[in-house]
Amino acid sequence: MKYKIFTLLMVLMASSSYSKYIQNVDSVQIRKIFDMALEKGEAYENLRTLCKGIGHRLSGTAAADSAVNWGYKLLSSMNLDTVYKIPVMVPHWNRGDVEEASVQSTGKRLKITALGGSVGTKGALISEIVFSNGLDELKSLGVEKIKGKIVVFNDAFDPKKINTFEAYSACVGQRYSGASEAAKYGAVAVLVRSMTNKIDSHPHTGSMGYSDPNLKIPAAAISTEDTEYLFRKYGENPGLKVSLKLTCETLKDKPSFNVVAEIKGSKSPQTIITVGGHLDSWDIGEGAHDDGAGIVHSIELLRLIKAGGYKPAHTIRVVLFMNEENGNKGGETYASWVKERGEHHLMALESDAGGHTPRGFSISSSDDQLASISAFRSLLEPYGCHVFRKSNWGGGVDINPLKLNEKISINKDMILMGFIPDSQRYFDYHHAATDVFENVHQRELELGAASIAAMIYLMDKYF
Amino acid sequence: MKYKIFTLLMVLMASSSYSKYIQNVDSVQIRKIFDMALEKGEAYENLRTLCKGIGHRLSGTAAADSAVNWGYKLLSSMNLDTVYKIPVMVPHWNRGDVEEASVQSTGKRLKITALGGSVGTKGALISEIVFSNGLDELKSLGVEKIKGKIVVFNDAFDPKKINTFEAYSACVGQRYSGASEAAKYGAVAVLVRSMTNKIDSHPHTGSMGYSDPNLKIPAAAISTEDTEYLFRKYGENPGLKVSLKLTCETLKDKPSFNVVAEIKGSKSPQTIITVGGHLDSWDIGEGAHDDGAGIVHSIELLRLIKAGGYKPAHTIRVVLFMNEENGNKGGETYASWVKERGEHHLMALESDAGGHTPRGFSISSSDDQLASISAFRSLLEPYGCHVFRKSNWGGGVDINPLKLNEKISINKDMILMGFIPDSQRYFDYHHAATDVFENVHQRELELGAASIAAMIYLMDKYF
Repeated sequence: MKYKIFTLLMVLMASSSYSKYIQNVDSVQIRKIFDMALEKGEAYENLRTLCKGIGHRLSGTAAADSAVNWGYKLLSSMNLDTVYKIPVMVPHWNRGDVEEASVQSTGKRLKITALGGSVGTKGALISEIVFSNGLDELKSLGVEKIKGKIVVFNDAFDPKKINTFEAYSACVGQRYSGASEAAKYGAVAVLVRSMTNKIDSHPHTGSMGYSDPNLKIPAAAISTEDTEYLFRKYGENPGLKVSLKLTCETLKDKPSFNVVAEIKGSKSPQTIITVGGHLDSWDIGEGAHDDGAGIVHSIELLRLIKAGGYKPAHTIRVVLFMNEENGNKGGETYASWVKERGEHHLMALESDAGGHTPRGFSISSSDDQLASISAFRSLLEPYGCHVFRKSNWGGGVDINPLKLNEKISINKDMILMGFIPDSQRYFDYHHAATDVFENVHQRELELGAASIAAMIYLMDKYF
Repeated sequence: MKYKIFTLLMVLMASSSYSKYIQNVDSVQIRKIFDMALEKGEAYENLRTLCKGIGHRLSGTAAADSAVNWGYKLLSSMNLDTVYKIPVMVPHWNRGDVEEASVQSTGKRLKITALGGSVGTKGALISEIVFSNGLDELKSLGVEKIKGKIVVFNDAFDPKKINTFEAYSACVGQRYSGASEAAKYGAVAVLVRSMTNKIDSHPHTGSMGYSDPNLKIPAAAISTEDTEYLFRKYGENPGLKVSLKLTCETLKDKPSFNVVAEIKGSKSPQTIITVGGHLDSWDIGEGAHDDGAGIVHSIELLRLIKAGGYKPAHTIRVVLFMNEENGNKGGETYASWVKERGEHHLMALESDAGGHTPRGFSISSSDDQLASISAFRSLLEPYGCHVFRKSNWGGGVDINPLKLNEKISINKDMILMGFIPDSQRYFDYHHAATDVFENVHQRELELGAASIAAMIYLMDKYF
């Protein structure tokens, strides 16, 4: 493997002037990438167009089609080697016009929003509530306390987790599976505390699924403020009733696309480096951090490589994935498509953790590969994107099937990476009405694009 | 020196189980500090009180007096060993009621704000303008092009600087000395492009000074948007006139205070670790990032040390400095006071770079000391505050006189540190009306307080 040779060379040449020369060439190239991104970057204006011109773009909607067209047109204007679309069939869920909840006795309106994939309520559903601290408490509550009621899942983010994605992972199970699990005990609906550290009035939607097609109850997210309000009121009056009305429904699957653009490799064009984010978003807010940022990071990567005059050895392929949020059909379709063509991947990198200030990369690889990649750290340190974290779960939902889906993947030695921006503010906006262009910072976004471009430059050159 | 012994020990014990034990004890203590800050932190609510209850607090104003009283009262309630005030005479500059500028021909209002220390205009001053790209261009413009005009200083932040403080340093000279330098060529006033990367409508004030008491001309900051507007209009019509009216004035010095609180050292109480920020702010906005954040970081440090049950070996002294913004009388007075008492300092740390997500520390020390401190890096890496950057200019305006002022300092081997939060957003708010509580993020602020407390714990224990 080339990376082993590289590791060896790095050790052998550590103190030679040749090594210094190489480092210097790379320093200059990386400095150039950052200068171009910060001085005449296009990521921010591209994001503005996507967010303000199209807005949110849930799979199956006309807005998602517009986003596909926008991406295809923009990439086609960039003088790249190839731009094309890969057909993907995607779920089509529709929120409907009504989503309302209130406390029955007082009429106090609760800030809720349906979870994606939920069934509607067929008129107003009025019921007593019961609190469950995550999925685990359901069992101890049992049928006796749950049957006929709305379960309010109340497992909160742990503020002690430094990486807020860990807090999210620890309690997102109640959002995805809460309805199915509560239904087993006879619940009639669920409300799920919004997935955020922040105590505010914005409900955060997100995906949910039903494990039993014959046992589907409605599910909605409730703002953290109103979760805590309801908890206090429930303490005063456990007989409290809540009225819930949702008109959401799942429609027929629809055709859509992944959008793909490539710079062909100059030495090993048959070996691929995939970089991407997802073009779809939830249907509230503007999908600015999630994942408009990843989309414009990826597009900017291609621009920076071309503008910097670097000729990649391998084929650099950007994929704007469709349907990450509620089905991952884009990611799975892409992995199958890669397998059918028998393509070999060196690596894939995803940016789907927001547009905040860069910290580094999560890396799913062998220990040898990780050791080789670690040699890049000093080159990225001046830019603050030098935290290299070993990942146990891959690099991103869209790219993971390439390596981790046993049925699809073909080369197990490929490397998966996730771009890691600072995580502190991400869940303030995630899947909420506040995930808008105005909450993305221009320089932070530009630094992210440059960080990704610098890493891809190094991986392409040395692996 | 103790730190040398420590370095030696670290090398000798690198692979021993004793070393692992030590590291483990420290990991546990640092984890505890972060848990306390994130789960039941008080920094954010303290900042709310300072910003919303008092607001901006320029030296010499009643609000600055209120801030002194607030700090003294809060620290007095924390069951510390000593709380006291050190008298400081401070400048008293008053913005006055009127600050206006407009383009004479069109009446278009320009967003300006007087620079702190500026004289007023004595009625409306109407004059042609001339642009100077920083101080350096004045000479080539010469008396011929400058005499009788308003000089508009237009040196912009370099977006390529990753650390925005470097961009600030590179062009802040035109703000501080622009009036004095332009006056030498006969200018009648100066307008200075606001010190920020952002193109927006907010003028950013800041300090300026006069090198010649007989040559004082008025100076104001102008928003970046209006600087660029004026530049375009000037291109179309170089005869363009601007009207400027400022009623600011410098009044008599006033008495004020540094506020001090201590936890006495259990082993070497006579050796001091000073930690601080500055209590005064500019007179627009709320001084939230600058430097409310540093004030509540410092106060929270004391709370975290006490609440964590750690008994420091040295005396931990927090100083809420007065008058950093326009005179540094608090910092100079404190250094003189330390010298008079013949106190020995182990170190001083300042937080005056905002309340954003922590990155690390700048360190002004000997190379040996820096090598010893570098041993802490792995303990702070899980919290993302592990960038240790060698500093050539000290640790902060308030603490620098302790070591760097030749006339005052008594121990040259002391270490100066500056807390480094992420710098990308800092100059969006710095000295502007937007530096308000709402633009400080709770978790980022709390992580900053914990990072500082962890560093002070390690320094106290191992130095």
